[in-house]
Amino acid sequence: MAAEFFEALKSRRSIYGIGKEISVDEAQIQQIVEDAVKYTPTSFNSQTSRAVVLFGEQHDKLWDLTLGELKKVAVSEEAFAATTDKINSFKSGYGTVLFFEDQDIVQNLQNQFALYADNFPIWADQSSGMLQLVVWTALHDAGLGATLQHYNPLIDAGVQQTWNLPTSWKLRAQMPFGSRLAEAGEKTFQPVEERVKVFK
Amino acid sequence: MAAEFFEALKSRRSIYGIGKEISVDEAQIQQIVEDAVKYTPTSFNSQTSRAVVLFGEQHDKLWDLTLGELKKVAVSEEAFAATTDKINSFKSGYGTVLFFEDQDIVQNLQNQFALYADNFPIWADQSSGMLQLVVWTALHDAGLGATLQHYNPLIDAGVQQTWNLPTSWKLRAQMPFGSRLAEAGEKTFQPVEERVKVFK
Repeated sequence: MAAEFFEALKSRRSIYGIGKEISVDEAQIQQIVEDAVKYTPTSFNSQTSRAVVLFGEQHDKLWDLTLGELKKVAVSEEAFAATTDKINSFKSGYGTVLFFEDQDIVQNLQNQFALYADNFPIWADQSSGMLQLVVWTALHDAGLGATLQHYNPLIDAGVQQTWNLPTSWKLRAQMPFGSRLAEAGEKTFQPVEERVKVFK
Repeated sequence: MAAEFFEALKSRRSIYGIGKEISVDEAQIQQIVEDAVKYTPTSFNSQTSRAVVLFGEQHDKLWDLTLGELKKVAVSEEAFAATTDKINSFKSGYGTVLFFEDQDIVQNLQNQFALYADNFPIWADQSSGMLQLVVWTALHDAGLGATLQHYNPLIDAGVQQTWNLPTSWKLRAQMPFGSRLAEAGEKTFQPVEERVKVFK
């Protein structure tokens, strides 16, 4: 029971060394994202989550745009050189999944259920996290490598304009993915006894 | 590829009719929660997520406590009768998983990385969502039924005191679970084309 599910979860890691030579076709990646969006739960079945998948030159465009925004806020040439290397490592991948939450739906819920108004943005973020993990795990399980990045809100306006997305789609995370060129580093774990308590 | 993982994800639903006659032992449920906490990612590998598993009379105590708090804020006897039925349906289950985020770690991250200070609570909630989904899916995959409830912050103080939990553990969600006495209702899906866009 649950064995395959946990197997996939355990093997998922942050893979920073990603490349463009992948053995999964784009239709399959699209299917993973669509299934993930469809079957990941949302509070009140509100279906607030949105995703954009960028392949090829559209993927390149995202990371060029991100680098351009980072240049505007760079504190030194030296710092920007390191930033450039980092962004280029994401650009070296095959594509990127962008994760959004539709604020029109969140606001409708807030108007409809005033008592929980403060909670809907939180629940939307919890759902976004669920979706991010599902896509991440499924991409990894398909043999790809990915990381989760957060250049929002710096790139929000550029992303909205470049792909002409609804202004209500609020960017929450970016997931560059590609072939796995390097395995993940060792991961350290805090003792689970300090994190989980059982009372019976 | 990813087939078993998505199979488990797709079959997970909100199960409101739950009972105490389960065929999974407590050690196995504890293992699910511990593995989920261990292998669900957190930003900067900060490992902010915490969980408490309540079985038997500890589980009963939670829902009695919740009902007591709800009584204090009840607007009418009629409304409270409906509330009582709802809470008793959760109490009819076998146990409850409580999800927390450790605010001491969140605040340390905020102090350490001032530039992202506003983001750490958001990322902690995204991680909490990930963890909630993993536990939910794994419990369902083990043959149990569960729902995700949010009586926080109403019950926060009572929960902290009853089980003498660290005050930095902030309650995010409650997941009552048990044997599946009723299947889930039909779920409606918005067209996925309106939720996922692909650019290549």
